[in-house]
Amino acid sequence: MAEFKTVRGMRDFLPGEAERLRSIEAKAREVAGLYGYGEIVTPVVESYDLLSAKAGEEVKSRMFVFKDLGGRDVALRPEFTASVARLVASTLRNLARPFRLFSVGTVYRYDEPQRGRYREFWQTNYELMGSSRPEADAEILLLTNSLVRAAGLKRFAFKVGHVGVLGGILGQEGLLDTVRAAVMQLMDKKQYEEAFKLVESAGVSDTCMAMLRKLVEQKGNDVQGVVNNVTELVRAYERSVEAAQNLGAVLDLVSKSGCNVEVTVDAGFARGLEYYTGMIFEVYVPDLDLALGGGGRYDRLIELFGGEPTPAVGVAHGVDRIMLALGQEKPVLQAGEGNRVLVVPVNEQLRDEALRVAEALRRAGVPVEAEVMGRKMTKALEDADRRKLSFAVIVGEKELKDGSVVLRNLAKREQRVVKVEEVAEAVRS
Amino acid sequence: MAEFKTVRGMRDFLPGEAERLRSIEAKAREVAGLYGYGEIVTPVVESYDLLSAKAGEEVKSRMFVFKDLGGRDVALRPEFTASVARLVASTLRNLARPFRLFSVGTVYRYDEPQRGRYREFWQTNYELMGSSRPEADAEILLLTNSLVRAAGLKRFAFKVGHVGVLGGILGQEGLLDTVRAAVMQLMDKKQYEEAFKLVESAGVSDTCMAMLRKLVEQKGNDVQGVVNNVTELVRAYERSVEAAQNLGAVLDLVSKSGCNVEVTVDAGFARGLEYYTGMIFEVYVPDLDLALGGGGRYDRLIELFGGEPTPAVGVAHGVDRIMLALGQEKPVLQAGEGNRVLVVPVNEQLRDEALRVAEALRRAGVPVEAEVMGRKMTKALEDADRRKLSFAVIVGEKELKDGSVVLRNLAKREQRVVKVEEVAEAVRS
Repeated sequence: MAEFKTVRGMRDFLPGEAERLRSIEAKAREVAGLYGYGEIVTPVVESYDLLSAKAGEEVKSRMFVFKDLGGRDVALRPEFTASVARLVASTLRNLARPFRLFSVGTVYRYDEPQRGRYREFWQTNYELMGSSRPEADAEILLLTNSLVRAAGLKRFAFKVGHVGVLGGILGQEGLLDTVRAAVMQLMDKKQYEEAFKLVESAGVSDTCMAMLRKLVEQKGNDVQGVVNNVTELVRAYERSVEAAQNLGAVLDLVSKSGCNVEVTVDAGFARGLEYYTGMIFEVYVPDLDLALGGGGRYDRLIELFGGEPTPAVGVAHGVDRIMLALGQEKPVLQAGEGNRVLVVPVNEQLRDEALRVAEALRRAGVPVEAEVMGRKMTKALEDADRRKLSFAVIVGEKELKDGSVVLRNLAKREQRVVKVEEVAEAVRS
Repeated sequence: MAEFKTVRGMRDFLPGEAERLRSIEAKAREVAGLYGYGEIVTPVVESYDLLSAKAGEEVKSRMFVFKDLGGRDVALRPEFTASVARLVASTLRNLARPFRLFSVGTVYRYDEPQRGRYREFWQTNYELMGSSRPEADAEILLLTNSLVRAAGLKRFAFKVGHVGVLGGILGQEGLLDTVRAAVMQLMDKKQYEEAFKLVESAGVSDTCMAMLRKLVEQKGNDVQGVVNNVTELVRAYERSVEAAQNLGAVLDLVSKSGCNVEVTVDAGFARGLEYYTGMIFEVYVPDLDLALGGGGRYDRLIELFGGEPTPAVGVAHGVDRIMLALGQEKPVLQAGEGNRVLVVPVNEQLRDEALRVAEALRRAGVPVEAEVMGRKMTKALEDADRRKLSFAVIVGEKELKDGSVVLRNLAKREQRVVKVEEVAEAVRS
């Protein structure tokens, strides 16, 4: 009898391997809890119409598509975002914004199998719905940092860009959306010359072409320096300037989070999926040249799926990639119990201080929900109260000078001043 | 724009629902740990040849079958056992017996959707490979009891039978395998009259027919009473007598486990899948007439998949069904930390005492591996030592009189006498 095998591109996880997979899944769930993301579980099989609606041609051509016994055109999900968008546009249409969703499971793409790439692979997926503010983008970057660190990786870095910088130029120069998408896809593949030819053939001026060539070379670890150079280069393009400033604001928040995140800004960085509208990023292991995950902002996607206009930012991480990067290194378990806490600044000027406090609490194992809507403190507290959060940590200037915050017990309507490092203990007891 | 929906028969789990799903999954994993089952993760997509090899016609006709982009005939798994058998017959071919495997995930069947029945549904799956002894069958029944209880259900019961009782009669009467399978399938659907007609048309004597009609009526909670009546009825059929005695031995172990398992023996009980060879069972909620899971012994399956002859017993539980049965009842979390412990009797006569100790330890949160090979104590200890288990609990007559056991630290090669209720504390410290 011929030996039965797995289908080409599919893999088994044996005991030990499966344990590592589930351990990363558990850490991802723990991180979801620490950041206030509620888990959803959507089907592996979705309608082809849904999955192909906003997928690029490349993803579409590699989907597992078939008819079910009822003659329906269905496919195996190649990613989570279409399913999440379906939910947000239908069942969750009336859910108060912002809300955060977490998913983990298998996705399917008919790629050529290679090291760390399978046709069935595992992803974790986090999406923050309803906020267009840089705090939201920063949160997605920071939770990715927490997840990769919690999984046990020590050496990893972020590459960050913004599709609005190039998009603003191409838009103002009058390029059609289809041409812009083609340019972006070429740039994603680092085929800059082909991309430039396409732009040039659309009748763009020599001055602009020279600027574009300079623009895509702007990159480096001096984040605000690169952002300033980019802003200066694109000064004639209003929406590009806005995009560069937005990117600067996001990365400023990240750098002040106390999380020690390694970031390279890259103005020539693009991502293939057409639905991104703002900040985009990848997290990768420099030593292995291995991407572990990526994401960004996609403010128009939910309307494209028939829902209410909903700004959104999200990230997907490749669990098989993280396992590959971990090699034989045994991941270290982290604690993660306790009550959910809202962290809110008393005013707009203290938002990065609030973020730093939030990150410090998360490191201490406290599940924290950060305020990302720029709402007034009283509004945010009312909302937290309505959603039955246990505690709010109010970050004010006076207390902070003393290394303290106001800890408010939302149920008991009591509050007191406590040191930041005493919050974890206080919310547990 | 038309609203996107889930494919008919598929479901979303929203936050809260997903949490309950994952909580049951976590309990299933905890129970796997408590009973020493190593988790494996196999692909959702398998070759059609594999999945159809031993599936009954009914399962085959409801599979999601398609061709991948490479023209391979593939399908979505309708259950876990074929994938497990593939692994046991290939990658795990040389793994020392016994071993225990645990899986959890989605399976797919194109059934008519109804309450608690989806086309994508969640199962947990446990398989014990390499033991033909009643201890193995009893373990599968007891871990099912632990899982359903841990999930938070209070009122549930077991229906247990043995395919060898009827099989022995039909075999000795000379019925062809295909006719026997057809008879079993009719009996699974409670179409007894049709089943009897089929047996009668094969030329079976009137005396035998009268006995068969009496046999399928034997059922009840007086387990050993029913088993004795069955044994008496089938006394002319040697293999049927053996089967009845085997069933009696399994249920005797279960009744002595101290687990308070509610069991009905039913001589007319059959399961549709053709691969069962011994004890079969279902766990169900009497109030809701809802089956939560089922399984049994299938000693020839691994060879049918090209592997070494490997006696095996297993169970699959429907997570969606458990969630339905739980209703809005909030499941209670259970502890489950500590070192794995082998529990072994000093001689064959003490095996039910050893099982009772094992169950008591599991209730106290200690992950226990029971000896199910009937090996001599020294052999079992050598094996535990080789596989780097932390502790062995040795159950001997002398110590038991005093409510004690011998606790052996396998790494330190030290042992001492401790009260059973002190073992949990001792292996944690």
